Amino acid sequence: MKPIPYLCRLALCSSLLVAISPMSWGEANVNTVTKGAKNVILIIGDGMDDQQITAARNYLHGAQGQTILDTLPVRSAVQVITVSNNDPTQPIYVADSANSATAMATGNITSIGRIATSAKSDQDLSTIMELAQAKGLKTGLVTTASITDATPAAFIAHVNMRGCEGPEQMVNYESYGDFVIDCQQDTFQQGGLGSISEQLASSDVDVLLGGGKKFFKQAPESKGEKNIFNQAKNNGFAVIDDLKQAADVSDDQKLLGLFAKKHLPVRWQGTDGRIAEKPQYSFMNFFHKYLGSVTLPDTMKCEANPEFAKQNTPNLKDMASLAINRLDNPKGFFLMIESASIDKQSHKRNPCGHIGEAQQLFETVQVALDYANKQGNTLVMITADHGQAAQIIPDGSLFSAYGAPIATPGFVARIETPEGGVLAMNYATNDFSHEEHTGVNVPFFANKQVVGESAEKVIKPMLQQTDIFGISRVYLGL
Amino acid sequence: MKPIPYLCRLALCSSLLVAISPMSWGEANVNTVTKGAKNVILIIGDGMDDQQITAARNYLHGAQGQTILDTLPVRSAVQVITVSNNDPTQPIYVADSANSATAMATGNITSIGRIATSAKSDQDLSTIMELAQAKGLKTGLVTTASITDATPAAFIAHVNMRGCEGPEQMVNYESYGDFVIDCQQDTFQQGGLGSISEQLASSDVDVLLGGGKKFFKQAPESKGEKNIFNQAKNNGFAVIDDLKQAADVSDDQKLLGLFAKKHLPVRWQGTDGRIAEKPQYSFMNFFHKYLGSVTLPDTMKCEANPEFAKQNTPNLKDMASLAINRLDNPKGFFLMIESASIDKQSHKRNPCGHIGEAQQLFETVQVALDYANKQGNTLVMITADHGQAAQIIPDGSLFSAYGAPIATPGFVARIETPEGGVLAMNYATNDFSHEEHTGVNVPFFANKQVVGESAEKVIKPMLQQTDIFGISRVYLGL
Repeated sequence: MKPIPYLCRLALCSSLLVAISPMSWGEANVNTVTKGAKNVILIIGDGMDDQQITAARNYLHGAQGQTILDTLPVRSAVQVITVSNNDPTQPIYVADSANSATAMATGNITSIGRIATSAKSDQDLSTIMELAQAKGLKTGLVTTASITDATPAAFIAHVNMRGCEGPEQMVNYESYGDFVIDCQQDTFQQGGLGSISEQLASSDVDVLLGGGKKFFKQAPESKGEKNIFNQAKNNGFAVIDDLKQAADVSDDQKLLGLFAKKHLPVRWQGTDGRIAEKPQYSFMNFFHKYLGSVTLPDTMKCEANPEFAKQNTPNLKDMASLAINRLDNPKGFFLMIESASIDKQSHKRNPCGHIGEAQQLFETVQVALDYANKQGNTLVMITADHGQAAQIIPDGSLFSAYGAPIATPGFVARIETPEGGVLAMNYATNDFSHEEHTGVNVPFFANKQVVGESAEKVIKPMLQQTDIFGISRVYLGL
Repeated sequence: MKPIPYLCRLALCSSLLVAISPMSWGEANVNTVTKGAKNVILIIGDGMDDQQITAARNYLHGAQGQTILDTLPVRSAVQVITVSNNDPTQPIYVADSANSATAMATGNITSIGRIATSAKSDQDLSTIMELAQAKGLKTGLVTTASITDATPAAFIAHVNMRGCEGPEQMVNYESYGDFVIDCQQDTFQQGGLGSISEQLASSDVDVLLGGGKKFFKQAPESKGEKNIFNQAKNNGFAVIDDLKQAADVSDDQKLLGLFAKKHLPVRWQGTDGRIAEKPQYSFMNFFHKYLGSVTLPDTMKCEANPEFAKQNTPNLKDMASLAINRLDNPKGFFLMIESASIDKQSHKRNPCGHIGEAQQLFETVQVALDYANKQGNTLVMITADHGQAAQIIPDGSLFSAYGAPIATPGFVARIETPEGGVLAMNYATNDFSHEEHTGVNVPFFANKQVVGESAEKVIKPMLQQTDIFGISRVYLGL
């Protein structure tokens, strides 16, 4: 950490401006509009690269259909840039969500795992939300992950490792096997800002919606309170665990809504919970790879994930709508909304999981555009933070006529699409329990191209991830 | 085939207009410019999806650098759409170069393997080059593949299977093992147009440059000539096998330049010809996948492919420059240029091979833009025909801290980049000798957005592959 001066910290920049009371949150409904203010809504599909978008398009709209992203007037691509922590002059060609969110949130390139801190030198980096708060704008973070997860965290917290989500994870915490999380220098004892949940609880973010109760139930390092939820309440947050409770929260209160122990359950799963599976080879294949035959997994359909309803999980669009209603105010706002489990379900090789979460993102884009259309001065940007493993491959090899048993060396899922096709999704970056990210440049969409007074301030067809910070800053006049 | 009426066939539409004599072809140099005419240059990177572009950018320009594509004012994405030959209402989610080139060349969606013919009904589909010729525009095809390969073929020939490249491949031709090529209905005997090489030789294309001598050395079905080269000469083609010979070809002659038996050698290879390799596991890993250790292949560098110089291979940019100089005329032209081996080297898991061919494409874009900037009315479009297997993955797993031996189940190449990084390329769509294509939407770039008189005729941020035909037609006024 090594704190450097902030423009805004703790309660100094609390916005005094009110939003109009929300109505029912049973479904997405943006009902308040303050004209004149300038707002930015940044929607991040975690891991939502072009393979992910194409898979979701094929399933949800058909191969010849269009997602809402495809209808937007501005399309660019974004270079995802990462450096080594040991030597920040050294490029690393595949990012994680922490360093890529840091780039978007702070305009600085950093190393894997870092939350708004610089590579090697470990300096805290000012975020767009801190700049917005300093000018009296409202701010919000909405995610389907734990609110302490890397993407939301990097917009307001500062630690050297993304795993430091609660006080219990701060010092020599053994995550799995040999993997140790350690942010000792960020503890209060060492003059730091504390864990991510502690930093969120002490923040001036007006709306925090997502999962991650477990990190707020922990006892804070400072010992003054039983848990971090209490710290948040002392800092002016109303705490809810059901979206409907938001109707009882007055407009001058900050809102912390957590709806799951960690990440929110996803909307969809494959038939009976099936995910991608290994092709099965016949006995003769043991002797030579071109002998015998191969059987691909049976096709599957996408169906509702029972956990989603069981846990009374809010839809992302409804969280987004609530956030927008509470943030709408005459001074403007910055809101980051993340569909987090596009990535998490791809790691787990669950195509119906990630397609359903892409659908959640598309619905949320519609909510944001509806608001932007009414309000007039809202920049809506949609992008991904990095590529993911999933690939659309032929259902049956392009070389099947050669007669050899040909299949992926990885895992494949064959999904029956509503339009009558079979969408084969390949996951083959490793044989571990979780797939890798990829280093591809990622797509970017926006509802307007001109973001500044000068004609030069336009969104170009090719961006670097750090430009998203710059564009937001120019648009909001920060 | 089932021929349907063409607007243009054989010598009916021969352009009478002259181009200015070319200079030396030792290096790319566009030296003739006719103002007023409208031209389209379509540059196709076969298999050049966003992973390919990012890999090439990382290697050639650095992770923070830009390719020439990244500097263009228009960026879109293209939906690649394929249907089943048995039931054209059924979607197929991964294309091949034949059906995707047919979409771009004719504006029609078709099935895998087809060259400008319709799925199931096998109707010949009019191409943009035939429309251009009918209006007196010049036309050209330039490729690093055999000129009879699927991408160039679909712009002028019509057969039901891409493999029918010469008369010997027309009837029950066993390509490999069980794989049989058959275009019996396209033979002259059955009232067809003959093989692809025969159709090219009898065409009115003004410039044909690439490889594929073997398909022109075959005896034609009609038996009148010893080989198809002679047929081409009878049809007004000057035939060359060295780019320098073009200086001796008069401007009123058509030009057929073939510089390799089949595909042109590629510019680069990995150290000592190395391609991607399988990670090697230690003995203990035999007992459980989380035991033992894994050794990734040694890093490699990209170096000149000795075959490229040995075969006196022309650079794509020089072929492009020659073609542009010969096509430049007061009535305008349509030129398709393909960097074909981005795809072919990805199939073979040769990252230096495909990066070098992406470099050839970038150089060619510069040649096209230089001409377009001087000439003023030239639309330059660059796109890919389909996705490819190659993925940029972390060099060492994101999960390496867990201590298990984690690596791709496929093949990986670790390339030392000039900026000092290690670029890990994964190929893992199958265990066969050649990787699969993927179904991702592909990038599109252009030098101008407005292509028609009406304000509605602009290139949108999301296209279907068939729109490329439509855009070309509008721009050329066909």
